[in-house]
Amino acid sequence: MASYNGSISSYLLISLLVASWRIYDGGKILVFPLEGSHWVNMDILIKALHSQGHTITVVRTTQSWYIKEESLHYSSITIPVIDGVEFEEFVKPIVKKVIDIERGTRSVLNFIHLQIEMFSTMSKVHRLECDMATAVLEDKDLMKTLEENQYDLVLTDPAWGTGILVAHYLQLPLVYNVRWITSGEGHLAIAPSPMSYIPMTGSGLSDKMTFTERVKNMIFYLLWEVQYRLVIQPHYQAVCDEFFQPGVDFYELLQGADLWLMRVDFVFEFPRPTMPNVIYMAGFQCKPAKPLPQELEEFVQSSGNYGVIIMSLGTFVSEFPHDIADVIAAAFAQLPQKVIWRHKGDRPATLGNNTLLVQWMPQNDLLGHPMTRLFVAHGGTNGVQEAIYHGIPVVGLPLFFDQYDNLLRLKKRGGAKLLSMATVDKDNNFLEALQEVLDEPSYRTNMQRLSRLHRDVPMEPLDTALFWIEFVMRHKGAAHLRTESYRMPWYSYHSVDVVLILLAVVVVLILLLVAIVRYLSIRSCLKIKIKSE
Amino acid sequence: MASYNGSISSYLLISLLVASWRIYDGGKILVFPLEGSHWVNMDILIKALHSQGHTITVVRTTQSWYIKEESLHYSSITIPVIDGVEFEEFVKPIVKKVIDIERGTRSVLNFIHLQIEMFSTMSKVHRLECDMATAVLEDKDLMKTLEENQYDLVLTDPAWGTGILVAHYLQLPLVYNVRWITSGEGHLAIAPSPMSYIPMTGSGLSDKMTFTERVKNMIFYLLWEVQYRLVIQPHYQAVCDEFFQPGVDFYELLQGADLWLMRVDFVFEFPRPTMPNVIYMAGFQCKPAKPLPQELEEFVQSSGNYGVIIMSLGTFVSEFPHDIADVIAAAFAQLPQKVIWRHKGDRPATLGNNTLLVQWMPQNDLLGHPMTRLFVAHGGTNGVQEAIYHGIPVVGLPLFFDQYDNLLRLKKRGGAKLLSMATVDKDNNFLEALQEVLDEPSYRTNMQRLSRLHRDVPMEPLDTALFWIEFVMRHKGAAHLRTESYRMPWYSYHSVDVVLILLAVVVVLILLLVAIVRYLSIRSCLKIKIKSE
Repeated sequence: MASYNGSISSYLLISLLVASWRIYDGGKILVFPLEGSHWVNMDILIKALHSQGHTITVVRTTQSWYIKEESLHYSSITIPVIDGVEFEEFVKPIVKKVIDIERGTRSVLNFIHLQIEMFSTMSKVHRLECDMATAVLEDKDLMKTLEENQYDLVLTDPAWGTGILVAHYLQLPLVYNVRWITSGEGHLAIAPSPMSYIPMTGSGLSDKMTFTERVKNMIFYLLWEVQYRLVIQPHYQAVCDEFFQPGVDFYELLQGADLWLMRVDFVFEFPRPTMPNVIYMAGFQCKPAKPLPQELEEFVQSSGNYGVIIMSLGTFVSEFPHDIADVIAAAFAQLPQKVIWRHKGDRPATLGNNTLLVQWMPQNDLLGHPMTRLFVAHGGTNGVQEAIYHGIPVVGLPLFFDQYDNLLRLKKRGGAKLLSMATVDKDNNFLEALQEVLDEPSYRTNMQRLSRLHRDVPMEPLDTALFWIEFVMRHKGAAHLRTESYRMPWYSYHSVDVVLILLAVVVVLILLLVAIVRYLSIRSCLKIKIKSE
Repeated sequence: MASYNGSISSYLLISLLVASWRIYDGGKILVFPLEGSHWVNMDILIKALHSQGHTITVVRTTQSWYIKEESLHYSSITIPVIDGVEFEEFVKPIVKKVIDIERGTRSVLNFIHLQIEMFSTMSKVHRLECDMATAVLEDKDLMKTLEENQYDLVLTDPAWGTGILVAHYLQLPLVYNVRWITSGEGHLAIAPSPMSYIPMTGSGLSDKMTFTERVKNMIFYLLWEVQYRLVIQPHYQAVCDEFFQPGVDFYELLQGADLWLMRVDFVFEFPRPTMPNVIYMAGFQCKPAKPLPQELEEFVQSSGNYGVIIMSLGTFVSEFPHDIADVIAAAFAQLPQKVIWRHKGDRPATLGNNTLLVQWMPQNDLLGHPMTRLFVAHGGTNGVQEAIYHGIPVVGLPLFFDQYDNLLRLKKRGGAKLLSMATVDKDNNFLEALQEVLDEPSYRTNMQRLSRLHRDVPMEPLDTALFWIEFVMRHKGAAHLRTESYRMPWYSYHSVDVVLILLAVVVVLILLLVAIVRYLSIRSCLKIKIKSE
């Protein structure tokens, strides 16, 4: 059985506390989080829920490396797994391949090769996730404990599916902290998404497309569909078939969540159809900057009027090819600004005196610092949202996943310039990009405008998220916000059957009319003939 | 020229005041309202905007009977019209016809007859509206004044189109206080609306339909489309063609509003796709009950434990056939409750001592009174929203427009029972309906549940509406919330062209493959033949 973190006495104490919390509406929440940057988001939500008096139980595995077993804000249940989902392990070879492709020949063959690599990685990740789901559902003692605990809802990130499966088993309301589902961008599962103006992730397209771009977008959509139907869905469906009654479809379970707390808003995302149970909470992790550590503040202040550039390529790209690092360092060295660079590899030979290498940086506090002029970023959602919140222009170096698309959204609003790894070391590209964004005031103006729009909301995103999570607890779900139309077969949903029947009726009526006219004209012809004879 | 309400000196004073208001964010709003119950809504919004320090100018006609020329909350511009839109005048014969049909034979022929009557009424109403729009746009002095006034936005009810046309002329941000557009329910213009689960107004269907119902729904959709394209659109398009550059499409102007403040929410409406620039403000007119006038309070108190029933059939149905009134009065007389009935016709012969006839009633205060047990209503949006707000069960007597559909939404949630005029006077139907809703606790429980859901929002609906109107003023529009996808031709929007191209490529590839296989097999056959010879 899974180990429950905490002795029986502390469990009793917690139960008593919960009983008293109930009086002021404290609920019990079961959380199935994801690792990596997804956990960074979820942890903020958990802390906020905890501060509202809710009791949170987090389900993790023995291989979780971000999600700690002990926390002041939650208790945890640890699932023993042997071959766990070490996401970083999967991603590293892909990062390498992407950089190789970017720097080598960008052929269709290479693209297909990369796609196959991605498919196989995705398949493995979701197979391991399903192994975990099976381990949880098979553990009778654990499931009994979960049932007895009488949670008010399951909170999960639906990019992976265990939380969805367990919520169905326990018949609990389901709330997502979501940007991605197992089959692509979150909206695709529940909101109508015309491929004519909803750009697919990875396509690098915007909401205004030429005919050729719309063809490309449709091909990307078909690729995602193939990946989901052939590579991902079978793993989850197998779990459904094993543990639930026949006819339970995993995708319908996924679509059936009460609430979708989306980590986007329409300052960032292109306008698109949405649903009543989608709540936008982009930037819920952003907050005003705190003062910097003294040493860092001194370094920032030493930049004088020129200001500071900060650079971070996120969690996965801690190291990259020496020659690129050298080009980047050399470009920084030519600028009058000071630079703070989160870099884990060897010290580049061309590093200037104005550049400080750090292993970690207080990114939010630096972005919110009045002397920060520019953010060199890989385009992860968290970083992009923080850039919007603080109104800092971006030079983007995207690699994979949604990074290019995230940065494209800033670029389309005039707040960012994008480079690829393939061109970053050619013809002073990087230096010119930095200089353009630093010198051309429109980049800053546009990011400041996005920041104003993003902050001009009737309620803070985190408070909005908390309100709606508690709403689901108060009303035991949000059925009235949720359409069940997705349960219709596709031909009914799209009225294909109705249109065919109506067309058939019209055709029959026309044929009848033609037959009658013919019959009448033949008869009158005959009559004329008979008469004339 | 249109008369401007107020002398030059008072105009100057207002201008000065406006200048000082600007300092604390007071804006200038130009309002094109509708008459009747639509004005009741708009007036509440205007008062709230006025109380926030905004200056409001209302455009009315010499024939406006609800919209007064003088008000503490707005100044007005009166357009002289000879043959004005006297809506009540149009509606009365339709009311009569509907009652006749309801009570006579409900045949397909009668339905078609009624549809033609409705079409011709709609055509006349919109033609007169377009005459008004033309009068406004032709009046050079008026348009100059409007331009010089530098309004921050146009606020209108898009069931009629003058506000839309003037906003385009003045190039001003456009905000709707909306439930209906010229072509049907508001969402239909901008949000994807699959006919498989979005019931058309007038169809009397819910969001869960059988195959036959879906066919019926599609027919209703086609009827609305025909009505709009053939009967309504041509009037407005003619105005566009006269005053704007070629290629300006009226429907695109209608779709292009910055913000849609919808007078529904998803406690009332079935869940459906929506758009980022749709803001739900259902019940923004509802407020806690004020104490009743002493006489009325005494009457209510005299009901003892039995409580009170209130009945109102809205503005248009002030009088209806004597025999029906007699049946209703007789049914009321048999109940132990007290009844307050808003009734303008002759005193029914069967009226009981427990029933008080009134010409007008403080409906909101009565619905919010703790002794009110039941609301007999025609199903207008305002009344239905007030019933939800106060959690009072309903017996519905719908006649036309959206009334049946509004009540159906309560019925589907178990909060109302519906009768038609055709059956109200048969077999004690009315009395039984009253008794069922009074005696069966589920009706009240369900309405109370709707009330709780409706009130459980992070922000009051009126405050939400105000926030977003001011948002549009602060940011001079809300372009980032608005897709322009509606400008695509339909075959592009629905990706028909893309699908055809992809299919063509697939077909060509298959044909090529077949050709190659044939060629190869023929060649090998020939070789074998040659060899064997």
